[in-house]
Amino acid sequence: MKAAVLYSGGKDSSLMAVILSRLGYQVELLTANFGVFHSWKPATESASKLGLKHQILKANPKILEETVEIILNDRFPNKAINHMHHKVLYLAAQNYNLVADGTRRDDRVPKLKLNEIQSLEDTERVQYLNLAGWGHRTINQLSEKLFKIKKEPTSMENNSDYEIEIRYLMGQKEGENVASKLFPPHIQSRVIGWREDE
Amino acid sequence: MKAAVLYSGGKDSSLMAVILSRLGYQVELLTANFGVFHSWKPATESASKLGLKHQILKANPKILEETVEIILNDRFPNKAINHMHHKVLYLAAQNYNLVADGTRRDDRVPKLKLNEIQSLEDTERVQYLNLAGWGHRTINQLSEKLFKIKKEPTSMENNSDYEIEIRYLMGQKEGENVASKLFPPHIQSRVIGWREDE
Repeated sequence: MKAAVLYSGGKDSSLMAVILSRLGYQVELLTANFGVFHSWKPATESASKLGLKHQILKANPKILEETVEIILNDRFPNKAINHMHHKVLYLAAQNYNLVADGTRRDDRVPKLKLNEIQSLEDTERVQYLNLAGWGHRTINQLSEKLFKIKKEPTSMENNSDYEIEIRYLMGQKEGENVASKLFPPHIQSRVIGWREDE
Repeated sequence: MKAAVLYSGGKDSSLMAVILSRLGYQVELLTANFGVFHSWKPATESASKLGLKHQILKANPKILEETVEIILNDRFPNKAINHMHHKVLYLAAQNYNLVADGTRRDDRVPKLKLNEIQSLEDTERVQYLNLAGWGHRTINQLSEKLFKIKKEPTSMENNSDYEIEIRYLMGQKEGENVASKLFPPHIQSRVIGWREDE
């Protein structure tokens, strides 16, 4: 049984990959890319360190354009990032019977509502999984146990979140200041390998 | 790291136990009992076949009394079963730092709301996990792969759900007819061991 996991190189999607892999799925990690910036690189590196198969999921640049337009209209990224995540899930569902992501119980975005999950599963004949039953405390504790983790301020080169290409395109269109206001800097965790005892 | 899983011997709670066990937790299965009927027996048998540690979680018979009263008042079991599940979770949280159950995305009952999970975790300093990110299709597929499963009509002797002691006490108080109407017969799945190739 194959399973695709939408993958950023962070703790949540890495943990989802480990769970599915230990249940016997052949896990393939997918990082969406919209063709404007090489934002997949950190995810590729994390996947390689974990010994998991990784692919770039090439998505239509129009989705990125739409996403940036929604953000510039809303002056707030949540709706736009959900829009992008939906499009990416439907794209992944074309090639896999099971598509998972690392969305946690306490995540606000991206997040699918129950009726949206039902639509995705029914129209695409796919199973969708996430970590909605798991909170950040458990995920942090498990990640510390399983993974070597690097914590650092986000930059354009050290993470593979949707944010990166959005910022890149927004910076080109509206200038770096606009992008920085909408996506303030924060500390992020990146998986850089297994803990030795794992 | 120890983890308690509220355990009925069914697919969902068995899968939760396997996930936690494969992530490195020392899993202890708990089946609540309120002292009126030996409803833990099927769960004990399933746990033993899986080679997992199992204990009876002795709960106050008053909780069962309250639960039966709520059902007789509502003429519908959902609110009462949620009440019982809450009490059992708080009881389990007294002895474990992590308490899980097999509640799925598509379960209606028992089900904790997000604010109820937050209260449980904060007041009891416990981590609570469930399978809210997983749908029945994935759980069925995985269970078929992992477990030997027996499907049969529910009886008083072949499952360890909350229903059993509720029915028993209700039958004593109101007669078997009332209990049968509120809990119509259905086909249930019981885990009776590992698949040979696991």
